[in-house]
This record gives sequence, structure tokens and C-alpha cells, in this order.
Amino acid sequence: MTSPAARLLAPRSVVVIGASDRSRWSQGAVDNLRGGGFAGPTHLVNPRGGIVHGQTAATSCAGLGEPADLGIILVPGHATVSAIEDLAACGSRSAVILTSGFAELGVDGKAAQDAVTAAARAHGIRLLGPNSLGFLNFVTPALVWTTPIQRPSRPDGVAIISQSGATAFFLTNLAAQWDVGLSYVVATGNEADLGSTDFARALVDDPATRAIALFIETVRDPTGFLAVATAASAAGKPVVVLKTGKSEVSAKAALAHTGALVGNDRVFDAVCRQYGVIRTRSIEELLATADLASRTGRLRPGGLAVISNSGGICEIAADSAESYGIAMPQLTDSAARAVQQTIPGFATAHNPLDLTGGITPEQCRAVVDIMAAQPEFAALLCPYYEVPTQETDRSERLTALHDALANGLRAAPIPGFVVSYTATYLSALSRRLVAETGMPYLACGLDRAITALGHVFAWSAALDHKQPPRRQPIALEMARPRSESGALALLARYGAPTVPSVLATTADAAVAAAGSMEGPVVLKIASPDIAHKSDIGGVALRVSGEAAVREAFERVHQAGLSVAGASIEGVLVAPMRPPGLELFVGVSRDAQWGAVLAVGLGGIFVEVLQDVSLRLLPVDADEVRRMLSELRGAALLAGSRGTKPADRDATARAVAAIGTAALTCGPALAALDVNPLWVDGSHVEALDALCIWNEETPSCAPT
Amino acid sequence: MTSPAARLLAPRSVVVIGASDRSRWSQGAVDNLRGGGFAGPTHLVNPRGGIVHGQTAATSCAGLGEPADLGIILVPGHATVSAIEDLAACGSRSAVILTSGFAELGVDGKAAQDAVTAAARAHGIRLLGPNSLGFLNFVTPALVWTTPIQRPSRPDGVAIISQSGATAFFLTNLAAQWDVGLSYVVATGNEADLGSTDFARALVDDPATRAIALFIETVRDPTGFLAVATAASAAGKPVVVLKTGKSEVSAKAALAHTGALVGNDRVFDAVCRQYGVIRTRSIEELLATADLASRTGRLRPGGLAVISNSGGICEIAADSAESYGIAMPQLTDSAARAVQQTIPGFATAHNPLDLTGGITPEQCRAVVDIMAAQPEFAALLCPYYEVPTQETDRSERLTALHDALANGLRAAPIPGFVVSYTATYLSALSRRLVAETGMPYLACGLDRAITALGHVFAWSAALDHKQPPRRQPIALEMARPRSESGALALLARYGAPTVPSVLATTADAAVAAAGSMEGPVVLKIASPDIAHKSDIGGVALRVSGEAAVREAFERVHQAGLSVAGASIEGVLVAPMRPPGLELFVGVSRDAQWGAVLAVGLGGIFVEVLQDVSLRLLPVDADEVRRMLSELRGAALLAGSRGTKPADRDATARAVAAIGTAALTCGPALAALDVNPLWVDGSHVEALDALCIWNEETPSCAPT
Repeated sequence: MTSPAARLLAPRSVVVIGASDRSRWSQGAVDNLRGGGFAGPTHLVNPRGGIVHGQTAATSCAGLGEPADLGIILVPGHATVSAIEDLAACGSRSAVILTSGFAELGVDGKAAQDAVTAAARAHGIRLLGPNSLGFLNFVTPALVWTTPIQRPSRPDGVAIISQSGATAFFLTNLAAQWDVGLSYVVATGNEADLGSTDFARALVDDPATRAIALFIETVRDPTGFLAVATAASAAGKPVVVLKTGKSEVSAKAALAHTGALVGNDRVFDAVCRQYGVIRTRSIEELLATADLASRTGRLRPGGLAVISNSGGICEIAADSAESYGIAMPQLTDSAARAVQQTIPGFATAHNPLDLTGGITPEQCRAVVDIMAAQPEFAALLCPYYEVPTQETDRSERLTALHDALANGLRAAPIPGFVVSYTATYLSALSRRLVAETGMPYLACGLDRAITALGHVFAWSAALDHKQPPRRQPIALEMARPRSESGALALLARYGAPTVPSVLATTADAAVAAAGSMEGPVVLKIASPDIAHKSDIGGVALRVSGEAAVREAFERVHQAGLSVAGASIEGVLVAPMRPPGLELFVGVSRDAQWGAVLAVGLGGIFVEVLQDVSLRLLPVDADEVRRMLSELRGAALLAGSRGTKPADRDATARAVAAIGTAALTCGPALAALDVNPLWVDGSHVEALDALCIWNEETPSCAPT
Repeated sequence: MTSPAARLLAPRSVVVIGASDRSRWSQGAVDNLRGGGFAGPTHLVNPRGGIVHGQTAATSCAGLGEPADLGIILVPGHATVSAIEDLAACGSRSAVILTSGFAELGVDGKAAQDAVTAAARAHGIRLLGPNSLGFLNFVTPALVWTTPIQRPSRPDGVAIISQSGATAFFLTNLAAQWDVGLSYVVATGNEADLGSTDFARALVDDPATRAIALFIETVRDPTGFLAVATAASAAGKPVVVLKTGKSEVSAKAALAHTGALVGNDRVFDAVCRQYGVIRTRSIEELLATADLASRTGRLRPGGLAVISNSGGICEIAADSAESYGIAMPQLTDSAARAVQQTIPGFATAHNPLDLTGGITPEQCRAVVDIMAAQPEFAALLCPYYEVPTQETDRSERLTALHDALANGLRAAPIPGFVVSYTATYLSALSRRLVAETGMPYLACGLDRAITALGHVFAWSAALDHKQPPRRQPIALEMARPRSESGALALLARYGAPTVPSVLATTADAAVAAAGSMEGPVVLKIASPDIAHKSDIGGVALRVSGEAAVREAFERVHQAGLSVAGASIEGVLVAPMRPPGLELFVGVSRDAQWGAVLAVGLGGIFVEVLQDVSLRLLPVDADEVRRMLSELRGAALLAGSRGTKPADRDATARAVAAIGTAALTCGPALAALDVNPLWVDGSHVEALDALCIWNEETPSCAPT
């Protein structure tokens, strides 16, 4: 780890600037450094010098006489710039600004923050904050935090990165309550310099970090976010995110809170799906998922096995597994027989397996071995007595059963856990019992555990889905088609299948074009100024024969001429396609994420149900196939209602080509609609297309 | 409470049959009775008499010499019938059978259970169990349970009724962890006699019970379930249910576990929606919702206000509220001003309100008063520092803030709670702090609290929705129409609008019929033996003019005659309706719940998306309107895609009349399909209908 973010998190020496016995923040920071086992020197700076927190304080960093890796800045806002300048004097390359009152307050605060950032940049100092609560490095201990902190019992596993300091604190407390191992906690605050994606990227490379839990209000650096996701996928390391800003109300609160824009939530959902980021909906779900994922890593293909001592819990587990999309394969006959032979008199063995209350520890262990050995299973969950929280909950029988379970699960070839029935906490006793038996234990409760497993199963299955690299578009001096024919030609140039069409400027030309096509034709007015051609009578369908074509040309052409100010290019003649499946394919530009591809089934699916699948461009045909399978109306692709089954490969290739065409246009293209993309078996064609351009954007600007 | 279930739960005296020092169950039962404050005498019976658990045991109930209200039966299965007979000798009218090994084991166990039930019936003794873990009455204390139990700090609030004893136990433990008030806990086991609905019905009338939490694997008594729901709604008392059996795997587990059939999950969902039962998906959600509902009762119309000390939590709250369908009204200008005047220098006041960490207790109290006084709000949630679990978490400032909050919330005109950020637990200290301040506190965490609030808001809004009474159908000696014309006539008889049609047996008659109708007509073969008329060429659409009608008659008639063995009634002539909105209306018979009405939009909505809304019959038009508004495609009713807006009242009346017609047919009607119910503005007509009959069912059997 040698990135600026990694260097900031692992200082060999620190200096607290603004140290004062009268400040509980200062006292708290020094207490955490000392009590948290920080191995290097902790220098203190106070303008008046003297003894602070029991040690001699320097009057400035310049006066320290030795270098300090990291400055911890506690001075008031107005003194922050000079603190940075002073810090440079002792060779620091990193600073944590715990002071608040900057961009989160509005325009004036933003100006003050910009001054701090400029000073830091001038001196080559990278920043965490301002308005940060600090960070916790449990691996090479450095607890840079001002309030009392519960340290995890294991200094590895989950790294927490949060734009909200309070939420970082709540997550750390919950991790202590559930005994979740933590490597780092970073509260990124206003992210004036280093942001959550910088720290996430650094921790992807950290061996003690096996999963990253991100709480974000806004993605300030979309490119960095995608880089984190891509690197994490390559490393097989899960990134789990809780992102707010879904509701309008929430978007307002985020604005008040961080002063940042909140992006379109549906696009963010699509980004997560596309780039293998696990998105969760609550603090508990975030931590339970990151914890579980940090302990399982990627799951092999297969389903979930459940062993419990309660039939009711078995049923709840099965229902929840179904809700979260987890397969629970049935036991094979031989496995069921093996269970029955292990427990004489046992009724039928199912998955989930209700062992009831009466078995021996030896039987319990044997059953775990049998279940864990089945190739159908990828993970094993045992809601099977909770770990006692107090002495009175203990019994010899329970201890023996938990020992048997712990030994069985540790020896199992697949990840397995004992899980509390409901969300609970680990007391000092529980923590000791878990440590002594080495039991893989989840205290988040069955419901959160199954939710988490659902995420981890889906993440594991999608880890091989690769995305094409995102590139700057080539600076093409291209024409910007405004008409249907131009848009179709643009698509065709990038390999998208389009309906063959001829632009006719005379009735004779239209007749000739129609004559060259098989079957009836369609005639449409061609004008960059007429978007809704049908509304003005500019479309003639199912036209056959010379006289009819001639008549239709005149009618459609006249309709176009009657639109005041419209420039008329002619009349487009194309073969009339028989009824087929109609898709909608659209590309639009998200202010934050760039070009977004939307695919849906035509008609009510898009108009009434908003049933579209979204992705960032570029996509390849494999990704488009996944988009198609996500649609609620996906069954229609199999060919219900008298249409042929759609050739999904041909359809996906066509959609991907449309995406390529749109992307190549660069940011000058505001939107591209293909409506419909007509699909008749493996015959796929864009029948109509529309491009909308940003006039002021040069065509070679970055996407 | 004088029902058999109520009497069983409140004994004045008990006798433990099978009491023995060697049995830990027996010891546990007696310990709980004694330690739990049971006020009446506890008699013990052991066939050998002597001193048991430190008191003299009788050798039989007959030998007690005084009556005992309730028998607690711990004897082995084979001795249960004699225990019941003995119990009758001391005048008992109730027994709890803790013994297992009955119907849950299969056919032999079922026979043994039937013998017990018969003995009890013969002696007028009502049963809880067998295979029950017992019950806990915390109100007039009687803890009939064999394992150690944590008693709630408040003996009122939620009553827990569970078919699974283990789940009842887990719920009771979780209630202790979260400090939820409990009135009763009942583990109903095999429900050989009294079942969960009997106990629920009794507890609806219990003043200490303000919400009922039900865990059920199967509804053994659907009529009783509906009676509970109806009585609870009338009493304004929420019934919250966790029902398993959703997944196929789970259905198998339930079979192994209780030997009962698991009903159709979608129908059960509809029953809950229709009858005001709150359905939840996990143990935590069940208890959090029942707890919250028991403390709020019905909420007035309005939205949710949130006050926090963390901006991140505000955003999470807003997002969750949106997910669970809770409105979060914006602050009015005057309310926002009042907040800003309370806290000098405060930025903009929003809902959710981020008070940040720095305000005084007095300011906190004033803000609570302002927020609680706004008429837009119906409830107030404060994720605002958790209640300390240990002394080191306490501080003067926190105590003062919590006092201010507690006083403010207690004085508020709407229900308000402090809620932990994440799911936590109450230590002895926390419990004392909550009791001392009288703080309304939820330890389930913000996420579960908002989920629960979503349920309570929806339940409150639906509490006025009344359902028509369910009656035995009048024993009608009615014809059972098999043909389309007969089915349409049946519908018309009960007031459903149908397309006017004429059954023509000759071409002349068809021509005459067509002549009497405006516009083109449709001709369809009329035969009880031909279900798919189009497939055999038995339908002619858009027919105009005498010659065409004549030709169509011959063609359609001939097509019918060519179907081997089909009895041909003639040809149905009806006006051809223009395109409109097409609905599917179906009635089918659920083995458990009886006649079920399904309504959906036609075409892909039903075929591809399974977008139907279900209800038990009878329904009135108001309920049908609610069904229509639940459809994913409901926007189509507003008249998109060139159709007129549907007259929802007329549509709902037509659907309700179809339901009435189907219900009146009684159980002989296996299914009734109206496809389509055509809607063109306020012109609503059944265009086609089909009845399917159970041949062997007499028409006057109960529904």
C-alpha cells in the first residue's frame, strides 16, 4: 500500500495540532492513540507550548525538531490554513482535518475549504476531511478518533468507509455488538481531497481487508468508483454499499448534509449490478453482508444447506431463502439415508434439516459432516442454539453441542456458520466462548444472514462477468444526423441491423424504391423538424402497388409541407415488416455517470410499467443478454402470443452495436432512441431511430 | 374472557399430572408456576405419591380431594388418555398436554391423538396441545412452561401465539432483549382441540392485550381466522402474522413438522390485505411490528416526522420511509421558522430534521414540541442517541437530552419514540433508565422500526374498509350453464353487464339478430364442448351485411359440426365492440379458503406478468376498486394509449356482480372466467364467459 490514501492510514508518527487539555476532542484523540497501541511517536502542538495531556507540547510543527508523518488538525476553521503550512515544515505528507464548518455549511464554507485544499496542494499534503471524524487503523494500530471506541476482537475482515462520521461510528459499534472483525474505519467527511473511492481503492490491495463496507451519500468520483469495483472484482474482494439519496426527501437531506449532488438512483443500481458491487438497504444489512462476504469469499456454485433444532425456524429459513433468490437443493437419497442412519428413529431427512432438540453432540457432528460433504451445497447455515450471553444460559449439553458444531464447521469444505435465531449481541462471555471454540458465529440473526447470503450467492455467480474497458471516445469529426434516415445510417455504420430504406424526393423515386422491395412498404415523411410523424399524417402503412405508393407519397409529402417552418428532406420508403416483438433501446446521458443504455420491451412495458434494464456504456452482447433476462416481461422473448422465440444472441448483438454507435458519438449526443428494435426470430432490425444533439458540445470532448 | 380458550389461559388452580423429581420438565414447570407468581394452588400428581418437588403429591386427580381448574399433563403418550379421564374426576375443564409424539409423527401418532381428543370431548375438557410447550400468562400470572423464561418488564402489550413452540420461545427471548411488553404467550402445538385462532379470538377481547403476534405454519380454521381478523378490526386491535409455507421447500418442512396442509400463499396474502391483518416476513419484523402497533394503536391520517442527531441517519430514514410507503411531509414554513428560532444559527429545517450533535436539552425539547404539534404528522421517530447499556456509555449531557426527549414524547399529541440506530439490546441498566424516564424506546433499530411503521400506517388507513358478511349460500336449485350464452345469462341475472347476444340456430335467425344490432357483429359457435372456439375456426369477427352474416353463420356452424362428439347449440350473434380496455375476471375455489376472485388486465398482464389482484368472496365494489388500484398496470385504467379513462365505479360494480353470481352458484362452481370484461369509459360488458362445474357437488352445500 503506497498510494496517498494508504500512506495516510498507516503513519509511523503523528502530530496533534491544536492539542489542549481543555479540549475533550484533543484528550480523546490522544487517549485513542495511546490506548489503541499506536507504536510511533505522538507529538503535540499548542501555540503556548507547555505540558499538554502530560507531555511537552511544541509551539509549532516547525519547532518539533523531527518529522511527523501525519498531522491531526483540531484547530478552529480560520486557523486551518496556517496549520497546514506549519505542518509542511515537519515534512508531513498527510493530514486529517477533524475541524468542521466548511463546505457542509454552504458557499462561504466552501470558499474556506478551497483555501485549505489549495494550501495542502501547494505543500504536497494529502487530506482526509475536513469535517471528518477521523480513521481507525486496527491492523498497524493507529486510532485517529476523538470519542471512545470499542475495538474489534479481530483486526481484520471488514473495512468500513463512510461519508458520514456518525454512521461510521454506528457501524463500528454494531461490529463490536456482533463481534465482526474490522481492519479499518474511515470517515471521509467533506472529501475535499481524498475521497471514499481513494480509500476503497487502497484497501482493495490491503491483505487484512477481505470485504469493504461503504456508506455513501454521493459518488463524487464515478470513474474512481468504477475502478474500485473493477479492481475488487479482479481481486475477488466484495464491495458492499449502502447509498442514500433514493427518495426526494433524502436527496434534500443529503444536500443539507454534504453539499453534494445526489445522482439518479436507478442508474446507481444499474452500476452496482453491472460492476459487481453489492447494494444493501440498511446499516444492519450492510454490515451483515460485508461480514459474511469477508468470511466466505466467493462461494462455489450450489445452494444453501440449513441445519436447525426447530421446525419453525427451518420453515422460516426456507421461505427467506426463496425470497432472496437462494436455492436450497433437496438432499439426495443417499445423503438422506446417511442422516437417518446417523440418528436412529429419525423421520425423513430434508433440507432444511430439523434435527429437533434431542440428538447427541456426536450425532450433530456426524450430520454436519454429511451435509457439508454434499456437492450440491455451497454454504451451510445452522440456526442451532444461540451462544450464551450469560452464565445462567450455559449447560453442559449446549457446550458439547456447540463444540461439535464448531469442529464440524471448521472442518467443512464449504463455509458454514452457526447463526443466532434473531439479531442479538455478544457479551464478554459470548466472545470468550466463540474464541475458545473457534466457532464461526453470526450474531446478526437468521433473517439478516440469509439476506446477506443472497447477496453473496449473486455476487459469486456474477464475478466472472467482465465489462469492456471504458475509453475516451476517439475524436471523430462526424456529421450529427437529425433525421430518421441519418440516425439509421449512423447505426448501420457501427454494425446495428437497420431496416433497408430509401429516401425518395419524388413520387417516381418512391415507386422505384417500393418496386425494389418485397411486399408492402411504409412511407414516412423525412424531416429533422418533425418528431411525431404519425400525429401530422406523415406516415402511410402497408402500401402496395404503384398507384397506392404514388398516392401515399403525395399525401405524406403534403402533410410534411403543411408543417410551418419544417425542412423536408423527402419521404422515406421502407419494407413493411410483419408483426414481431418490439423492443425499445435508448441511450441517454447521466450528468454523473455518462452514457446510459436502456433496454425494454415496447409498448406498455416501457410506457406503463417502466420495465427497462439500465447499464453504463460500453456493454458487450453478454451483458445485454443479462439485461434482457432481467426484464419483467422477459417471458415474451421466449415467444408467447404467437410470435417466434427471439434470437437472444442476435438481439443482444444488435443492442450492443447501438450502444457502440451512441458511445462513438461522444458527449455531443444527448439521446438516441431506437423505437422499435423489431425482432422476428433471428431477424432483428431497427425500424426507426432518433438522435438528439447537444449543440454546444464539441464532438471530441471526453464522455 | 369466558371462552374455553380464555378459561384455559387463566386458571385459579392447577394440577401437574406426571410430576416427578426425576423429570427436568416437571421441575421446570413447577419452578415457573412458583417463581412466576401463580396465586392459586399447584397440585401435583404422581402414581406413587410421596414428596415431589418438596410437596406432597397425590396418586391421582381423583384423590386430590379438591377441584383443579387446569391439568398440566406430562405423562408419556400412552398414558395420556387415562390422565385425561383422571383429570375429569377433579372437575377440570381445561388441560395442557406437553407430551409430544402424536400427529406430528404421522398416521399412528394421529390415531393416538384422536383417542386423546375423544376422551377430552367425552369429559368436557378443552385442550391445548398435544406437543405444546405450554403457555405464559403474565397478566394474572400463570407460567405453564417447562424451561426457564425471561419475564417482560411490562405484563401487557403484545400477545404471542405460535404453532411452533421453539418460535414462541425465541419471540419471548427477543421481547426480553428489546424490552417489549407481553401479556400472553401461547404455544399451540398440534392444535388437536383449541387452535391459534381460538386463542387469538379470546385475546382480542383481553384488555391487557393491545396487539396479537401470530406465528403460523398452517391456518387450520379459515373461518375462525376471518372471525379473529374481523373482531380485531372492529376493536381497532392489530393482528400481526408471520406465516411460513411460501416456498415449496418450506411447505415440505411444514408437512414434516406439523402434518398439516399449507395453503396457497398468494391467497393468504390477499386474505391479510382484505381483512386488515398485517403480514410480516421475519421474527424480528413480527415482534417489532406488534410492539409498535400495540403502543401506537391506530394512527391518525398523516405522515412521519424524524428527528436525529445524524445527517446520515436522516437520509437512511427518508430512503427507508419511501421504500415502505410512508409519507414524510415537508415542514411548513412556519414550523421551519419555529425550529430555526429555537436554535440560533441553525441552517434550513427539513423533515427529516438533522439537529446535529450540538444542541441543548432545552432546544431538543422545544423542537420535539414543535414537530409533534404539526397536523401533517401522525407519528414521530427519533434515532437520537441509543439508551446506554453500560455505565461507561452514560454522560450528564446524554441523560439530560434523553430526559428532554422522554418528556417531550410523553407530552406529544401523536405517538413518538426514541429508536436505536441499529438493532440492539437492553441491559439491566438500560431497562432501569427507560423505566425511570418513561421514555418510549424501541430497541429494534431504525430499519425494523420503519418497516413496522409502514405496516401500522397501512393498517390504520385500511381499518375502515369493511367486508360484507360471509354467508352460507342460499340453496338454489339452479341450472348449471355450460355454454357461453348460459354463463352470460347467469351473470346478467345477478346484475353483471353482459354484451347483448342472440343464440341463432339458423342463418335466417342470425341475419335477423344481426339486423337488430348496430354496427358489425361477431358470430361464435355455441357448444358446451368447445372451449377454444377460435382454434377450430368457430369465431367470425367484424361481420357486416346480410350476405356476410349468412356466410359467417354457415362457416362457423360447419366448424362446430366438424368437432367430433361436440353438441352444437347454435351460433351466438353479438355486436362487435370497438377496441377498449380488457380485463380478466376469474373466480376459482381454494381448498382452504373457498371462492377466490381474481381481477387483472387482459393480455400480457395476466399471461406474462401474472398481475392479478386476489380476494375472498364476497366483495363489494369498494373492495374491487382497491383491487384495481393494486394492479401494476393500474395506470392503464386512467386511459393511456388512446383508450378512454375507465369508469372505475362502473367497472368495480360489474366485477362485484360477477363475484355475487359466482358465489350464489355455491361450491358446485369450480371456476368462472370472464375474459374479457370490456371497458370503454363507463360502458362495461362481459364479452365472453365460461363456467366449470364440479359434477358431484350438490348445489346447496356450504361454500
